[in-house]
Amino acid sequence: MKKETYELLESYMNSCMEDSAHDKEHIYRVLYTALDIARTEENVDYDVLICACLLHDIGRGEQFENPKVCHAEAGAEKAYRFLKDNGFAEDYAVRVRACILSHRYRKGNPPESLEAKILFDADKVDVVGAIGIARTLLYKGQVSEPLYTRMPNGQVSDGENDIAPSFFQEYKYKLEKLYTKFYTAHGARLAEQRRAAAESFYTNMLHEVQGTYANGIGLLKACIDDSDDSL
Amino acid sequence: MKKETYELLESYMNSCMEDSAHDKEHIYRVLYTALDIARTEENVDYDVLICACLLHDIGRGEQFENPKVCHAEAGAEKAYRFLKDNGFAEDYAVRVRACILSHRYRKGNPPESLEAKILFDADKVDVVGAIGIARTLLYKGQVSEPLYTRMPNGQVSDGENDIAPSFFQEYKYKLEKLYTKFYTAHGARLAEQRRAAAESFYTNMLHEVQGTYANGIGLLKACIDDSDDSL
Repeated sequence: MKKETYELLESYMNSCMEDSAHDKEHIYRVLYTALDIARTEENVDYDVLICACLLHDIGRGEQFENPKVCHAEAGAEKAYRFLKDNGFAEDYAVRVRACILSHRYRKGNPPESLEAKILFDADKVDVVGAIGIARTLLYKGQVSEPLYTRMPNGQVSDGENDIAPSFFQEYKYKLEKLYTKFYTAHGARLAEQRRAAAESFYTNMLHEVQGTYANGIGLLKACIDDSDDSL
Repeated sequence: MKKETYELLESYMNSCMEDSAHDKEHIYRVLYTALDIARTEENVDYDVLICACLLHDIGRGEQFENPKVCHAEAGAEKAYRFLKDNGFAEDYAVRVRACILSHRYRKGNPPESLEAKILFDADKVDVVGAIGIARTLLYKGQVSEPLYTRMPNGQVSDGENDIAPSFFQEYKYKLEKLYTKFYTAHGARLAEQRRAAAESFYTNMLHEVQGTYANGIGLLKACIDDSDDSL
């Protein structure tokens, strides 16, 4: 890819993501991971891949303003229009659009081209491991969701079968299930290398908080006159 | 403590922290941990301790609205006034106020009574380990601070000697240094039990992101015509 092209795409990405310093770093992590995966594959079109990585989340703002909007769909159309407006070939714009459209995990819309599969996997590598835990917790802070919920008996739920949103619920519902959903061998390998970091964090935190409540609820009852089960 | 007293204090705590579901759980974790520490000490005044734990963060709202306000000072005064207004003895209100005033880590204002030391330690136990990592990341999300910053060469800083706020900066500046700051033997022991969880999370995440950039920056340069050091 020509340097001017890279800078044009990077600058457009930046203009679409002005408000969130850390989201921009997600773009670079995905780009760098995609290039690492690409090394292990043959006949990768790097111009399509680099462009799709840089622009894959430019529809986030639209989804944030209206949660019914899918950022993959919005971003795919924005990228296509930007490329056409800047004189790129129709075939190139179409291929980038297809990558962005299928990068989100949704049934019925799997990535088809090699570049789309690499983008998909690179994006998912950033949801596993310690970085995936950190990004999930940052997001829970942004939307004011709690770390865990408590069961009717006051003890801490591990997130399994929870309906109310929380960090533990997200871990059990999504994060822990990602490892089988990769399209490239190297993407799956990178995810597997990070698996223990995420699992041990969840297990350690669960142990800490469940232990604190399991022990403390009884200690408190013993301190309260006329104690009953409602404490 | 009488059940009516507990419920009065708990209800006042709830009224002061209406907006943040997870902050309320912090109060219960501190209360439960304090009772666990209290078991290992002699002559603890449980009425003072329970009250101080429940009310220790009721000044958070004032600090959030005006960052110059210290939540420990604001909370101590609010608690004192609430207790006096509700007919509690002067001596009791004074002792609770002193605990709350000294629960924040600040030079020149160390906790003095046994109950103040237990509250201080229980509050700090909730900043170490996996739960401390999780709370720090939630907070970084709330105030839109990034996970890490990049050095002039594009590589990821480990947070050491950073000035710009980030999760890594907070870990190196504060979280990793807490373990020597406990007043009670059991508080220090609880913190030590959680130390490996926090350290391994930081180390794993640092390894993941530093590796991604260290590898990716070179891969990207190799893909760009007319590459220079500014990428």
